[in-house]
Amino acid sequence: MLKVVVLGNGNVATHLCQAFEQSQDVLLLQNYNRKGLAVLNCNVSVVSNFKNIASAEIYVVTYNDDSLFETAEELLNLPGLVVHTSGATPMNVFNKFKNFGVFYPLYSFSKTIPVNFNEIPFAVEANTKNNEGVLIRLAKTISPKVYAINSKQRKSLHVAAVFANNFSNFMFTQAKEICDDHNIDFKMLHPIIAQTLHKIEYTEPKLVQTGPAIRNDEETIIEHLKLLDSTKKEIYLNITNAIKNYYGKKL
Amino acid sequence: MLKVVVLGNGNVATHLCQAFEQSQDVLLLQNYNRKGLAVLNCNVSVVSNFKNIASAEIYVVTYNDDSLFETAEELLNLPGLVVHTSGATPMNVFNKFKNFGVFYPLYSFSKTIPVNFNEIPFAVEANTKNNEGVLIRLAKTISPKVYAINSKQRKSLHVAAVFANNFSNFMFTQAKEICDDHNIDFKMLHPIIAQTLHKIEYTEPKLVQTGPAIRNDEETIIEHLKLLDSTKKEIYLNITNAIKNYYGKKL
Repeated sequence: MLKVVVLGNGNVATHLCQAFEQSQDVLLLQNYNRKGLAVLNCNVSVVSNFKNIASAEIYVVTYNDDSLFETAEELLNLPGLVVHTSGATPMNVFNKFKNFGVFYPLYSFSKTIPVNFNEIPFAVEANTKNNEGVLIRLAKTISPKVYAINSKQRKSLHVAAVFANNFSNFMFTQAKEICDDHNIDFKMLHPIIAQTLHKIEYTEPKLVQTGPAIRNDEETIIEHLKLLDSTKKEIYLNITNAIKNYYGKKL
Repeated sequence: MLKVVVLGNGNVATHLCQAFEQSQDVLLLQNYNRKGLAVLNCNVSVVSNFKNIASAEIYVVTYNDDSLFETAEELLNLPGLVVHTSGATPMNVFNKFKNFGVFYPLYSFSKTIPVNFNEIPFAVEANTKNNEGVLIRLAKTISPKVYAINSKQRKSLHVAAVFANNFSNFMFTQAKEICDDHNIDFKMLHPIIAQTLHKIEYTEPKLVQTGPAIRNDEETIIEHLKLLDSTKKEIYLNITNAIKNYYGKKL
């Protein structure tokens, strides 16, 4: 049984606590958060006073990237392996510790939306091979998809996820607004979105690009621009030009 | 049995011919294309000489948007309902005909990738209620998802699909390139992409936006920009600013 304390009360902390509580190979000792808030759908014991924090093998620090430096100080006198869960922060933010690393679940968590950890890839990194082994073991208690990658790769993975997840979601938001403005059911677009995803699971996305930009279909592009407000027009033009440039067809 | 002729040999024509051939309520009389090319995975009789085109109830014209005007001339002396399959072209491009309309499958077709028409929404429009009824009947022979919408709505739907499908696919292409450049398996991103899709099926995309842009996380944004080449940097900045503006946080 790996003895674990999770620090923080955000989206990542909530889902990790829930998953560790269910795991038979993890003993989730505590959640620590400064306000002493209960963890949603989880019976873990919560402490708000740092003096009461338990002695664990692994401390999983889920704070915002900006808070990680300060956090390091607080944890200095504790035993065990101290890891953060950030995709964007290098492992070395914790290099004051003897044992440190990264335990990054590559996912976009929302507190109230259930998560199937079996599907979530974990990217782990540690200051020693032994610690890396511990983190792989911990990750494997909740997911079969565990990758050991270094800080530079993880940062690249994080920026790739911004494109693949955050930016694409923003495109869906724009699409939904256009539908709402014209009294169209956004559900009509669900199948085409699902198909896009399905396609990239067995072929490269660059090979299945469609639409007026790659066809260099100026007439359609002009018609589309007429329908859009100035904000959406700017987004449409920027990405259309990027697609044209990518596929070698200049405006 | 609805008697149908499909005109054209592109992605849409190929999949419609395959689907109509399977349907028990459609008699697919012919495919017409100028080069007389066979239709992939379909035994439909192919004609290349316009004089040999059959007398049908419905002519489904799948030509490129730009060719539709010219096409109209050719079909003038034929009986039956003449429809195009374009999301971006108004119905009135065919107003020289007595019976005309639109039969638009909202999907991104690739010739060699199999399609499940049960999942594909059809947007239909016709010059008379009777013709609209015929098109609804035809669409329902291959899909339960049939919507009667007008030309302006369809155009809006088409531009929404550009955002939801074409633009998001281009984001996946960027993500894949970043992964390739850093020796990371793009499959690590599949779950987060699948989750984005899953989320928007039961909530609005604008409510589940995550990432450094909506958090106004300048430090991460700067770190990400350092990792990107000039083309990707421009895309990243454009969309990041759009997200910030959308959620009310100016740079």
